Amino acid sequence: MNLLIKNVILPDGDKLKTTDIAVTDGIIVKIGCADENFKADEIIEGNNRLAIPAFVNAHTHMYMSALRNAADDLPFMEWLFNGVMPKEDRLNGEQAYWGSLLSCAEMIKRGCATFCDMHLFPGNSAKAAAECGMRAVVSRGLVGSDGGQKRLDDQFAEIEEWKHEKNIKFMLAPHAIYTCDKEYLLKISSEAKRLGLGLNIHLSESKAEFNDCMRDNGCTPTEYVASLGLFENKTLAAHCVQLTENDISLLAKYGVSVASNPKSNLKLGNGIAPIYQLDQAGVNVCIGTDSAASNNSLNMFSELNYMTLLHKGTNYDSTAIPAKKALDFATVNGAKALGFEKLGKIEEGWAADIALLDTDVPQMMPLRNYYAAICYCCDGSETDTLIIDGKVVMKNKELLTIDTERLYYEINKIVDFLDN
Amino acid sequence: MNLLIKNVILPDGDKLKTTDIAVTDGIIVKIGCADENFKADEIIEGNNRLAIPAFVNAHTHMYMSALRNAADDLPFMEWLFNGVMPKEDRLNGEQAYWGSLLSCAEMIKRGCATFCDMHLFPGNSAKAAAECGMRAVVSRGLVGSDGGQKRLDDQFAEIEEWKHEKNIKFMLAPHAIYTCDKEYLLKISSEAKRLGLGLNIHLSESKAEFNDCMRDNGCTPTEYVASLGLFENKTLAAHCVQLTENDISLLAKYGVSVASNPKSNLKLGNGIAPIYQLDQAGVNVCIGTDSAASNNSLNMFSELNYMTLLHKGTNYDSTAIPAKKALDFATVNGAKALGFEKLGKIEEGWAADIALLDTDVPQMMPLRNYYAAICYCCDGSETDTLIIDGKVVMKNKELLTIDTERLYYEINKIVDFLDN
Repeated sequence: MNLLIKNVILPDGDKLKTTDIAVTDGIIVKIGCADENFKADEIIEGNNRLAIPAFVNAHTHMYMSALRNAADDLPFMEWLFNGVMPKEDRLNGEQAYWGSLLSCAEMIKRGCATFCDMHLFPGNSAKAAAECGMRAVVSRGLVGSDGGQKRLDDQFAEIEEWKHEKNIKFMLAPHAIYTCDKEYLLKISSEAKRLGLGLNIHLSESKAEFNDCMRDNGCTPTEYVASLGLFENKTLAAHCVQLTENDISLLAKYGVSVASNPKSNLKLGNGIAPIYQLDQAGVNVCIGTDSAASNNSLNMFSELNYMTLLHKGTNYDSTAIPAKKALDFATVNGAKALGFEKLGKIEEGWAADIALLDTDVPQMMPLRNYYAAICYCCDGSETDTLIIDGKVVMKNKELLTIDTERLYYEINKIVDFLDN
Repeated sequence: MNLLIKNVILPDGDKLKTTDIAVTDGIIVKIGCADENFKADEIIEGNNRLAIPAFVNAHTHMYMSALRNAADDLPFMEWLFNGVMPKEDRLNGEQAYWGSLLSCAEMIKRGCATFCDMHLFPGNSAKAAAECGMRAVVSRGLVGSDGGQKRLDDQFAEIEEWKHEKNIKFMLAPHAIYTCDKEYLLKISSEAKRLGLGLNIHLSESKAEFNDCMRDNGCTPTEYVASLGLFENKTLAAHCVQLTENDISLLAKYGVSVASNPKSNLKLGNGIAPIYQLDQAGVNVCIGTDSAASNNSLNMFSELNYMTLLHKGTNYDSTAIPAKKALDFATVNGAKALGFEKLGKIEEGWAADIALLDTDVPQMMPLRNYYAAICYCCDGSETDTLIIDGKVVMKNKELLTIDTERLYYEINKIVDFLDN
């Protein structure tokens, strides 16, 4: 299957160039004039469109879009126990699937091709991703102090069910140190080792988590997890807001990837992760949206914008986290954390996960700089085409793999059920 | 002229209602079923659209959209002296007009009806606003240590020229304490008093400004301006990032309005204004985008989102600056600061400055909460209709008062001139 993307704008040093991208079987085979013998099965006209590597959303909870706007501006505990959990408790697997598909629709519309999901309902996000052609790393949120074998077994069954889907991968996800006891953490770590899977964990998100761990274990959450040997697995740690200098050294030493969720951390009153310092220490930083129940948006352009501006502002340094670096966080670093090889750059030999952005809109005028345009000007609505693994899933802003009419109908049904 | 906006969504306590809005000669005359004898000259079908008060952008530099993406990720002084100023020096009045019109186009597309501009080229933003039907408060940035009579005279001539345009108002704008000497500040203040005009000033934006003022005057920038008597004029102070507790008390005592520009302050490495504390002290807080050379976007939805999230996060309080309050900052508070009466709310007897937002998009599903949807879900692209002073300036995302083809042509010409 040959795809030709014509006349798109790419960076050329500090300048811009207009060029073609030829894709064969999901791989970028040529940037520039395609070979004469390249016969395109499909041609995308990219006129005046910026081509960017599609985003990798490194931390989210897909089903929770069904809970969007259910509880906001509340103290954290009230948000969780009165706002989110009572609705979550009533949600079933099929409703979680529709919630996940809604997340897929929003992400595709905003140029995101890949997500890392921590879920409660096996199969829901894998099914949504497979149907709409996204890449996913899926993990069941494992909680408990009862050994949690049932949840692990659910996870193993889910892995078995989706093992033939090449764009669906798995991690094991001990939810957090405050929802898993020590024995369960060790068990999950050993199962991950046995299966060669990575770990996906919420780590040091709030001051409460940090202080409780200091009180109970005499060390920081990061030190605690390191001391249990979890970091000997390939690990993706979400949040990492409350970190000491030693924590940053540990994350760097063990090659832990950090999925930062700047908007969720701010909105829930948890603060700002020391991303500038993590990056300086050589940690692989990536970006997540967290869920639509905490954010309440899954727009990676907005996260990208926060990622650059927030760390310039709080470090009093307008050169901190430049646009090009932040784009790497949101693309290739995420792919690396999730174990996708050669994903997240527009280069020959790399995967054809590409978003095209319309530049004929006031906020993109004048264009001048590729990276500044993406990080500082876009609101995300400029995305009009999305290609994942060489397949076109959105064209001229129309979703080709999702029936939105049906989706919205099902979402409204869920709201009627949950809110009344 | 009667306008009927049908079937829009408005808040109804904690719930939502679908209703009509009837407008006569720019004023909302009825919310609910219009009177039987209300004969609409124009009907807008608002199906599934949220009606919100159009934004008031309380601080910007309109012409600078022509300089967008010219210099980013640089140290502040390099940005200003090597990036912005050499281009600014080459810009002429007509080019500034096209830059201003580009700003108008971007703002209208993102639901903004009113702006407060500090410019270098008399007439450019007033002309742009008048042509496209926006409301504006216009001020010439007054700088100098030479008495600056010429710039004041330019300003007076501009005021005279536009005095018959009811939606164009003026302020006098001493640019900042570091660009105006004491005598000039006093002169401008006295001229403002004479003419009954408000003042528009950049205040305490950077640590450098704060520290220099402490060194040179033995007091903070806010104390310095207060001591000169400037606050005896109705004053709009932009930025106010570096503030002491006494500064906050002074701003409250003198009824100074603060135009906070959260994204610009972050991006230029200046930090975060103490908005939570200013609001608690009773200061009238409003929101600006600053210019497209520093931000680089004029999207008030994004500023609104930053305004809520940033102050929740940095105050470790998820209840800080709730969505409803932030929307007031971005609408009615801005109108108050700029001297527009009964502007910024959708209520009977108030001005018909209304934006309609499409809710049939993934990021707005499920809707549930009016204020959360506006502040936490929207990226701004949902805006499909904008009504200013009862006139429809955008319908179905099409700008009715701006020829964008010509505009983009002129902008590209300016880039060719400035960048080569």
